[in-house]
Amino acid sequence: MQTKPITTFDELLATAATLPKKRVLIALPTNAETFEAVRIALDKLNTRFILVGEEESIGRGVASIQGAGKEVEIRHVRETADALQVCMELLRQGKADVFMKGSVDTATMMRAVLDEKSGLRTGRLLSDVFITESILPEGKRFLMITDGGLNPAPDLKDKIDLIYNAVSVAHALGNSLPRVAILSATELVSTSLPSTVDAAILAKMNDRGQIKGCIVDGPLGLDNAVSRAAAEEKKIRSEVAGRADIIVAPTIEAANSLAKSTTYFAGWRLAHVVVGGKVPILIPSRADKSDAKLLSIALGIVMSVFLETMER
Amino acid sequence: MQTKPITTFDELLATAATLPKKRVLIALPTNAETFEAVRIALDKLNTRFILVGEEESIGRGVASIQGAGKEVEIRHVRETADALQVCMELLRQGKADVFMKGSVDTATMMRAVLDEKSGLRTGRLLSDVFITESILPEGKRFLMITDGGLNPAPDLKDKIDLIYNAVSVAHALGNSLPRVAILSATELVSTSLPSTVDAAILAKMNDRGQIKGCIVDGPLGLDNAVSRAAAEEKKIRSEVAGRADIIVAPTIEAANSLAKSTTYFAGWRLAHVVVGGKVPILIPSRADKSDAKLLSIALGIVMSVFLETMER
Repeated sequence: MQTKPITTFDELLATAATLPKKRVLIALPTNAETFEAVRIALDKLNTRFILVGEEESIGRGVASIQGAGKEVEIRHVRETADALQVCMELLRQGKADVFMKGSVDTATMMRAVLDEKSGLRTGRLLSDVFITESILPEGKRFLMITDGGLNPAPDLKDKIDLIYNAVSVAHALGNSLPRVAILSATELVSTSLPSTVDAAILAKMNDRGQIKGCIVDGPLGLDNAVSRAAAEEKKIRSEVAGRADIIVAPTIEAANSLAKSTTYFAGWRLAHVVVGGKVPILIPSRADKSDAKLLSIALGIVMSVFLETMER
Repeated sequence: MQTKPITTFDELLATAATLPKKRVLIALPTNAETFEAVRIALDKLNTRFILVGEEESIGRGVASIQGAGKEVEIRHVRETADALQVCMELLRQGKADVFMKGSVDTATMMRAVLDEKSGLRTGRLLSDVFITESILPEGKRFLMITDGGLNPAPDLKDKIDLIYNAVSVAHALGNSLPRVAILSATELVSTSLPSTVDAAILAKMNDRGQIKGCIVDGPLGLDNAVSRAAAEEKKIRSEVAGRADIIVAPTIEAANSLAKSTTYFAGWRLAHVVVGGKVPILIPSRADKSDAKLLSIALGIVMSVFLETMER
């Protein structure tokens, strides 16, 4: 594990490039965007790729990447449906460190991962952790948002897993005590707004040492979570308000649109990774720019090293 | 009604300043921010204020505003609890055009408004319409988000009212056929994600002419709703995708945090107004800057003129 915290995406890329070589397994890479991601990762990071799919189309994609030969292995499958099973087998055998989606839809890929027999589950919920490099009056810093990708309506128990999953990413980045804001529309607990009730419970569980490795507070509105001025104006006494590292949103729609607002409204850089399984999983969106794909691979690599350290 | 559409906040201020004088009623103005809003509105717009509350504290606030005398009327009440009833009576008598919150909490004020006897209800749900001047690759334009203020978990029927309320604001601003995006985390209908199911139903109701005065489409993710590039990349054929004027979010948390992201992440200007009642209602937040308060008053004035036109 790196000892110096990683606090910017440039530092993330620099760190990922110095780590021991990691193997990224891609299910069904056929689209140009995926080969673009492979090309830039080979260029900028210390990676090796295993591509599973129909040999001819993969070969054509690989041929377009200069000098890819020695760091790219192709596993041929005749039937598309077999590709995911071949991937699961390779992962079970420990032949890959990071699992990445090619041109298979996310639901199909996640069904294979979530299957009891996949061997990829840890007992914890899997969730998507989105990370952006925020540019706020207080400076430039990482801000994570979860879960905009996998769990539509997490219940209280699920939210504990969402917290731990996001916290594990913060820990992997060297932030040993991240501040977690449980998001709602207001900072007041209201019995008629369940997200505020859950937030209060999660904050108290953290107070009591039942949720560890982070500081949790909520409910908080987005303004109170990220702006010190807004938190002070409302006189909120909290170690999280105004300086949250992680935002846990109550629903997939809230997390997803909030994450996208950082990209489409604010223009900030992004990466995201699915955690909670035995290996980090990357589900890049077609709309992700190549910068986002490279950053997500780098994040997957750093997470992989972190998970290995934890296992020891 | 203005015939030229209002497409920027500067145009909104310019238009509001030329409209016939409107009377803004404020319940319990005691805090400095409220008097600041009164001061700038008197300076920049064509308004008259009626302030209801404890005479001495209001008098002190008014004294701080130069030349306020002739455009500010004070209605003295001895008990704070009576102030809201006095306001309701003035509104029933048609003595004010816009109703604004002072230092009374939103829930208490809205309870008075929502009371069957208030005379302010129209049969339609009241909802908060947030409007920002977005700065996107496609240019600068108004983007509305609803409902981040009043309705925690609108059902399908409620969402129809949310659409009509936001559409009425767009109409008041001269956009006669606004594009309404029903927000979810994805553009695909999924039976396991109720917000996508509601979105599909609302879009079809609009197709069939059951929701009028606008073009509705959904489900759409935030990216597909506001970015033409993202909509094209996903090959979404839609008159709304990539150019939504109004975003209807599935929950109060999603709408509230998305609206706040435009302020706190993107740094865009904002205004908001509660519509669906007989008069526009302003519930400024303490954290709103004076620009936001002035813009909200201007929006209230334009809405008031629009509602009068509709009544005729």
